[in-house]
Order: sequence, then structure tokens, then C-alpha cells
Amino acid sequence: MHTSDELLNLFNQALDELPLDKTPARLYDPIRYVLSMGGKRIRPTLCLMACELFCDEPAKAMIPALALEVFHNFTLLHDDIMDKAPTRRGMDCVHIKWDENVAILSGDAMQILAYQILGAAHVNYLKQCLPLFSQTALEVCEGQQFDMDFETQPSVTVAEYMNMIHLKTAVLMATSLKMGAIAGGASPADADLLYDFGLSTGLAFQLKDDLLDVYGCPETFGKRIGGDIACNKKTFMLINALDKADPATRAELENWLSQTTLPESEKISAITAIYNKLNIKELCILEMEKHQKKAFQTLARVSVPESHKAILIQLANELTDRDK
Amino acid sequence: MHTSDELLNLFNQALDELPLDKTPARLYDPIRYVLSMGGKRIRPTLCLMACELFCDEPAKAMIPALALEVFHNFTLLHDDIMDKAPTRRGMDCVHIKWDENVAILSGDAMQILAYQILGAAHVNYLKQCLPLFSQTALEVCEGQQFDMDFETQPSVTVAEYMNMIHLKTAVLMATSLKMGAIAGGASPADADLLYDFGLSTGLAFQLKDDLLDVYGCPETFGKRIGGDIACNKKTFMLINALDKADPATRAELENWLSQTTLPESEKISAITAIYNKLNIKELCILEMEKHQKKAFQTLARVSVPESHKAILIQLANELTDRDK
Repeated sequence: MHTSDELLNLFNQALDELPLDKTPARLYDPIRYVLSMGGKRIRPTLCLMACELFCDEPAKAMIPALALEVFHNFTLLHDDIMDKAPTRRGMDCVHIKWDENVAILSGDAMQILAYQILGAAHVNYLKQCLPLFSQTALEVCEGQQFDMDFETQPSVTVAEYMNMIHLKTAVLMATSLKMGAIAGGASPADADLLYDFGLSTGLAFQLKDDLLDVYGCPETFGKRIGGDIACNKKTFMLINALDKADPATRAELENWLSQTTLPESEKISAITAIYNKLNIKELCILEMEKHQKKAFQTLARVSVPESHKAILIQLANELTDRDK
Repeated sequence: MHTSDELLNLFNQALDELPLDKTPARLYDPIRYVLSMGGKRIRPTLCLMACELFCDEPAKAMIPALALEVFHNFTLLHDDIMDKAPTRRGMDCVHIKWDENVAILSGDAMQILAYQILGAAHVNYLKQCLPLFSQTALEVCEGQQFDMDFETQPSVTVAEYMNMIHLKTAVLMATSLKMGAIAGGASPADADLLYDFGLSTGLAFQLKDDLLDVYGCPETFGKRIGGDIACNKKTFMLINALDKADPATRAELENWLSQTTLPESEKISAITAIYNKLNIKELCILEMEKHQKKAFQTLARVSVPESHKAILIQLANELTDRDK
């Protein structure tokens, strides 16, 4: 079995070898730029690990791993335009470094590139995985649209929120595992179990993101603490706080949400204090642990030796134990 | 053999049956809106016609025909954002009727949808046509980027311009024909001839577009005459005019291009007068006819009875004889 770092190195090497030094420069340079920004490479790592559960050669899943990472980075590129984000991973976003038109078009090209990469897979593999990939890609778009809709929607239920993160985040992680498993020769039942493991892991991962935004350590988090609070983002934390608060606390919370004149830091402190009073942190951790437990129960049913699963369990634990 | 209108009806019926009445509404409503705007449906018509050259059932090419039209409409949707176009076919563009984020994301979803549709094709077909489709889609993006680059590039050669329209317009028409031919059971040689016929036809089609912008009939053209001139678009007409003008005429032309204060109508009249003096209209018609002649020479080599080809010849003639 390869270590997580070994798989990451294998992947990064293959990514570097994509033939992207082409013209027009303003189409391909942004693609190379985005792919060179790094990131956790969670999806390709999951894909290669899932493959290695079932065979000795994780590289058998390199094609889907590349397609998934290129697709994921395309979504980040276009999401950053839509969110008007200035930077990602400490670097200027494409729509800042170049312009918005370049960001739209190079994102479009990345999406095609993802399919072009996948299209080179064996035809039997393609027949199984192309519909899954397209279905997942559409679901990611649906999740992003729900997320944007939530901004102007007066209220969002916990169920609506969980459905949104299911679509926006969890399905791509699930599909990464399933496509890797299929590449490794998994039975349909095992491939589906890996998918379900990925769904639960993805939900836990996103809940951890919500948690870190409020309770992360400013030194290690990398982003400003309270960013979601400052922009009234309807996260698991905020939706539950509005849900659980008594009338007086709810009025206080809504007052802070409508606040536009006071310094953001005051708003962030005040809303965090309300979260503390309502035990929202504990609620989020409980929910996260619920999904993680479900993930591990699902993984336990996959018909490979338990020792093979250790690396996936370790990665899933890292995704929820992380501090950035 | 079916008539052009019969094929169009077949296609529109299949397009109407796409399951697009889904949530989130702000993702799928714009897709249905764009697809219901109509348009000439040139690419699916070419695809179905090419199929019927080789078999009795044009519907065998319905899957690629749908994928190609959905892809083409995605490019229009995103191009309209990039061009800041307010309307298309007399209707508000998606980024106006909804907003820019909706237009970006629903375009992304349309691109996936095109692949999802194509992914339902028979696996043998997929193996042949998926790489062609992806290659073509990337080339269309390259063409769009070159087109945008030209706006700020001090000068553009005729060769650069022809390469741009080759990528932005001709390859998708070529691929429509080739994918239809393959669906109909064409030999590789015939499929490639159809591709080349489409390339030449596509170039002639785009040159006609350039011509209509200057010399179209205001009543039938549907768009404002002189739109390209008003925004200094480096078309076949302008590039050749700059190329062929004597120093004095060139100075006059460049003076008009740098003009920003006089009414647009004066600029359009003056530049049209320069085109007239330089016989640019005739030059463009000659170039168009050159490509059309090449198209017909290529079509003549396709190994099906000449009578079968009449419908394609008629369509190609309509594409260059059109007045809108």
C-alpha cells in the first residue's frame, strides 16, 4: 500500500504532465495557474486510495483522479467569480489576475478538459463512469445555485442546508471514491458503499468547514475567522442558532444580522457569543460526528481486509480533525 | 429522404422532451429559456442530414444532434456575458433577464448537459465521438479567446482571422456533420470528408455574417447594420481594408476607427464608403465562394449517390444566400 503522501506525489506528477502549454495564452495560462495553486487534492487522493483498496496499482485510477481534480478546480474558478472573491490560497483569483471574461472562458475550457481527460479511459470504464461523472457535475452546479439562492431567501431549514452541502460538496467526494473503486475492479456493491462512505465523509468535511470559520485558530486557519458571520452566510451554525434561540435571543441575533454600520469584528464577537450561549459548536460537532460514524459503518461493510481500509479511515479523520 | 423542415421538426420535438423542468429553478429555467429561443438549428440539422446520407434513419443521430445544439447554445449564453450583449434573437439575454451569476452557472450546467446527453450514446459510438466532441469544444473556446484577444491586439492578419473563425465557428459545424455521418454508419474516409465539407461551409457561413453586417438589408437582417463597424471589430472586411488601402485611405480609415465623438451612423457610412472604394465586398464574396466551392468539391467525393447530397448542397447554398 502507498502512503497518502506517495499517492499525492504520483498524482501531482501526472497533473504536471498534462499538455497545457498551448495557445491562446490567455486561455491556457489561467488553467495552469489554477492547477498549480495546490490545495489539499482531496478528491484525487480519495480516488487513488479507493482504487488501491481493490488492486495493487492505484495509478489505474489516474485518469479519473485527474478529471475529478480538474473539474473541482473549474468549480472553484467559477465560484470565485460568482462570489467576487479576490484571492484563493493566498493568490489572486483568475478574474483579478486576468479579468472576468478570461476567468469565465478558461473555466469553460477546464470543464471540457476534465471530460477530455476522462474520455481517454477504457471504453468499458467510460460506459460506467461517464454518466456518474455528468450526474455529479450537474449536482455540484445545483448545489452552487441553491447556495446562491440561500443568500436572498428569508429563511433556510437545516434540511435544505444539508441538501445543499450534499450537492455542492459531498457528491463529488463520493464520486471520487466510487470512480476510483471501479477503476480498481470493485464489485458494484462495494463501489456503491464507497460512494456512500464519501457522501457521509463529505458532509462531515463541510460541517468542519462551517465550524472552523467561527472556532478556528486564527494562526493556522489561513482565512479570516468569522468570514461567514460577517456576510450573514446561512451556515449550519447560523441556521441552527436562529432555530434554537428563544424569542429574545433570536431578536438579538437578527439585530446583529441587519447591522451594517458597526465594525465587523463587533458583529463577529457578538454572534459568536450567541452561538456559545446556544451551544451551537457542540451541536455542529455532534452532527459532524454522526456523519463520520455513519461513514465508518459504511466503510466497514466494504469487502476488503480491514487493514487495507486504515489509510482511508486516517484521511477521513484528518478531514474532520484539521485546523485549516 | 426527409426535407430540411421535417428534420427540424424531428429535432425540435426531441429537444422539447429533454427533462429540464427541475430545481433549482434559477439553474434550469435559464436553460429552458435559452433552448426555447429558437435559432437556425444549423448544427443539429447538419448532423441529421449527414446521418441520412448513409442510412434511412436520421434519428440515429439524434443524441449527437441534441448534444451539439445544447453545447452551441451554451457558448452563445457565455459569449453574451463576455460581449455584454443585451439581447439575442430579440429577447433579453440570460445575464440581463436573471443576472450574471445565473448566466455563468446555467451555462456551466448546459455544458455538462451536452456531455450527459452524449454519454447516453452507444459505447462504440462514444469511443469514436467523445474525443472529437471534446477536442472541438476546446477549439471553440480557443476561437472565442482569440476573438477577444483581437479586440486589444494592434493588428490582426487575414491568416490569424481565418484561423479564429475556423476555431470559433467552422469546427463545430464540421464536427456536427462528422458525428452525424458516423451515427449513420459512414466509413472513416467519408466521415472525414463530411468534416472537411463542414469546415469549408463554416468558413463561408462566417464570411457571409461579416458581409451581412455591412451590406445586409436593414429590414430583413434583424440586427443593426454596421454593428461590427461601430465597435471596430476586426472582421474580414476591416482587416482587408486596412491591408489594401493606400496610405491616405488607410489614414482616413484609422481616423474613423479612433473616432468616439461623432454619431455612429456617420462612422458606419464613412467606413462603408471606404470598403466600397476598396472593393471589399467583392473580395469577401470571392473568399466566401472559394470556400463554398471547396466544400462542394469535398462533398462530391463522398461515396453516396449524388441525389442524396442535394439536401446538403441546398442547405449550404442557403447559408451563404441568406439575408439574415
